[in-house]
Amino acid sequence: MIDFVFQNPAKIIFGRDALHHLGAEVLRYGKRVLLVYGGGSVKRSGLFDQVMAILAGGGVAVWELGGIVPNPRLSRVYEGIDICRKAKIDLVLALGGGSAIDTAKGIANGVPYDGDVWDFYSAKATPKAVLPLGTILTIPAAGSEMSYSSVITNEDGMLKRGYNSVTNVPAFSLLNPEWTFTLPPYQTACGCVDIMAHMMERYFTLVEHVELTDRLIAAGIRTVLNNAPKVMAKPDDYDARAELMWTGALAHNTLLHTGRIGDWGSHKVEHELSASFDIAHGAGLAIVFPAWMKYAVMQHPKKIAQFAVDVMDVPTDFGNDTDTALEGIRRLEVFYRSLGMPTRLADVGLENADYAALANRALPNEEATVGEYIKLTRKDFVAIYELAK
Amino acid sequence: MIDFVFQNPAKIIFGRDALHHLGAEVLRYGKRVLLVYGGGSVKRSGLFDQVMAILAGGGVAVWELGGIVPNPRLSRVYEGIDICRKAKIDLVLALGGGSAIDTAKGIANGVPYDGDVWDFYSAKATPKAVLPLGTILTIPAAGSEMSYSSVITNEDGMLKRGYNSVTNVPAFSLLNPEWTFTLPPYQTACGCVDIMAHMMERYFTLVEHVELTDRLIAAGIRTVLNNAPKVMAKPDDYDARAELMWTGALAHNTLLHTGRIGDWGSHKVEHELSASFDIAHGAGLAIVFPAWMKYAVMQHPKKIAQFAVDVMDVPTDFGNDTDTALEGIRRLEVFYRSLGMPTRLADVGLENADYAALANRALPNEEATVGEYIKLTRKDFVAIYELAK
Repeated sequence: MIDFVFQNPAKIIFGRDALHHLGAEVLRYGKRVLLVYGGGSVKRSGLFDQVMAILAGGGVAVWELGGIVPNPRLSRVYEGIDICRKAKIDLVLALGGGSAIDTAKGIANGVPYDGDVWDFYSAKATPKAVLPLGTILTIPAAGSEMSYSSVITNEDGMLKRGYNSVTNVPAFSLLNPEWTFTLPPYQTACGCVDIMAHMMERYFTLVEHVELTDRLIAAGIRTVLNNAPKVMAKPDDYDARAELMWTGALAHNTLLHTGRIGDWGSHKVEHELSASFDIAHGAGLAIVFPAWMKYAVMQHPKKIAQFAVDVMDVPTDFGNDTDTALEGIRRLEVFYRSLGMPTRLADVGLENADYAALANRALPNEEATVGEYIKLTRKDFVAIYELAK
Repeated sequence: MIDFVFQNPAKIIFGRDALHHLGAEVLRYGKRVLLVYGGGSVKRSGLFDQVMAILAGGGVAVWELGGIVPNPRLSRVYEGIDICRKAKIDLVLALGGGSAIDTAKGIANGVPYDGDVWDFYSAKATPKAVLPLGTILTIPAAGSEMSYSSVITNEDGMLKRGYNSVTNVPAFSLLNPEWTFTLPPYQTACGCVDIMAHMMERYFTLVEHVELTDRLIAAGIRTVLNNAPKVMAKPDDYDARAELMWTGALAHNTLLHTGRIGDWGSHKVEHELSASFDIAHGAGLAIVFPAWMKYAVMQHPKKIAQFAVDVMDVPTDFGNDTDTALEGIRRLEVFYRSLGMPTRLADVGLENADYAALANRALPNEEATVGEYIKLTRKDFVAIYELAK
């Protein structure tokens, strides 16, 4: 176990009654709110109207920034910062999933910053202050409701970049599993893949003696494996939706990487796909992660074999580490496909994409690497895309 | 899963390098510190001198409240409150285990309160404000370094009482597994029992559909089961000490009871023992918890059978729920004894204690109950003490 600092002050209000806390939470910060949200689903479900009614009832003035799209764009962050400054906003409130929340994080961090907010995403600066931020989560996936992370796509070059900062941890997040009943099956499945990926990125580490966090991660992934099929079969299964929603928040709140070093290579390999082709992040991960694992097995089979046994129930006496690991990856792919997820680039029509171009955009030169469990150069990116074909 | 609010803002600084953060953390709050600590061990180990040197180096003035004993006393809390008020203390800093920390919590909550701080422990008032509180943890056991809880014994009647409040969550806690190398084996074992008990109190719930937290708790208990024997055999096993120390903090930080209702009957039954006879809390729990489980099996075997299978590796086909549960309890007792813990009241010379008197002090009348998984009256207290004989 390596030394670590852990702190996550987010206040999570979870359950059927979550929305009843909204008024009191907002009024802790003020009466001028920017509401950031996505498309029509929160309007169709009636949640948008409920939120507006609660805010109006509390005497809260609301500015709106709607229409946030998946792989959210930097231009909308700029737009939100501009509104906040002009309207002297007290609290940025995101309503939706990771796209709305990550946009709200960009805005909340950008408002008190004199420079260009993209500086944070391009690692040129770190935020020192932030506007208060609240979230109302309708899509369990990104974990942004409790995470240090925000990921935004800069349309100038379609660069998808993220950064981590304690200023990105929301002051409060409301989570009601009922809000996820109406998610389309594909989006539900993408969310499950994303939640698992956040835990798998942390599981695959070269740091030894990380038993507690290994076990906690396995507990989280097994919860998704057990409950994802339930919600696919019965979208209004409150208990299964609740398991997924809470797992999704804990998957990315930094607890599961205490004392260890995560990998995050798969996320980088995937980000180039979803930034360039606008495919769903979860679907991209279902394609990329098994390919990354097959590639990583060649260098470090041990932890992937442990994953196969402890998470995917591969018998411990299946064979050597490599065979055990490969059987675990096979079972993972079977699981993804059972949710209707693609597991090959051909499944999303990208079997002939320009993989070298994707790799070149991900990394500044031939020598640069990303990832920790294995170090990925441009060449490795291409090899993983090829394995995922 | 039931609705819940979860928030734990404690900043955990963990590892060999933890003490290097002390100066910066203290100076966030001011330059006048009350240092609360126990007996000679922190002086013998040199940690006390290190802490004093760091504080002096930062220009911090230190008032001392030393000699805090296990089952810490209310009179020392009063003493600390008095020092803080007179010296205008900025931060209460606990150095030691749960006794020092719980005393510091009592002080930090008592200073801004106009009434008697015992009001909080006797449920007559709830704290509204608190002095900043930091901890330097040397004994993984109580989980007080991250918990909402403080337990104090009032010498007037030897009443041992606790209360939960967000104001009890420390602003920061430093945890270095090396500081636990010199713990006597008995104290190490008591700590392991206490850590497990905090998780078991939460595991045994009648709330259904709590899969994620069931799995997280099992992960934590299994980590103790696996690492406790390692530190008993090799007290300076850093990795095993680290697993126990981090598990100890997470066991009681409220994450593991999100969405469920814990029992806490065993703790109440034990508190009467340790308050009256001054036996170590962990040793008392090793005696009481298995007896409580045997008693609870008669009403609700199911969750105890699940514990037997998921935590104690009892084969799922062992038999009916009751038999499975009893085999799990038997294995738990074997484990406790392997650590040198007592598992019967006779082991600590209390086979002929006045159990009715203990029960009468725990509960105000014949009808009153404590516990959630099963409701315990005075009569049940006596029955459990009898089972533990």
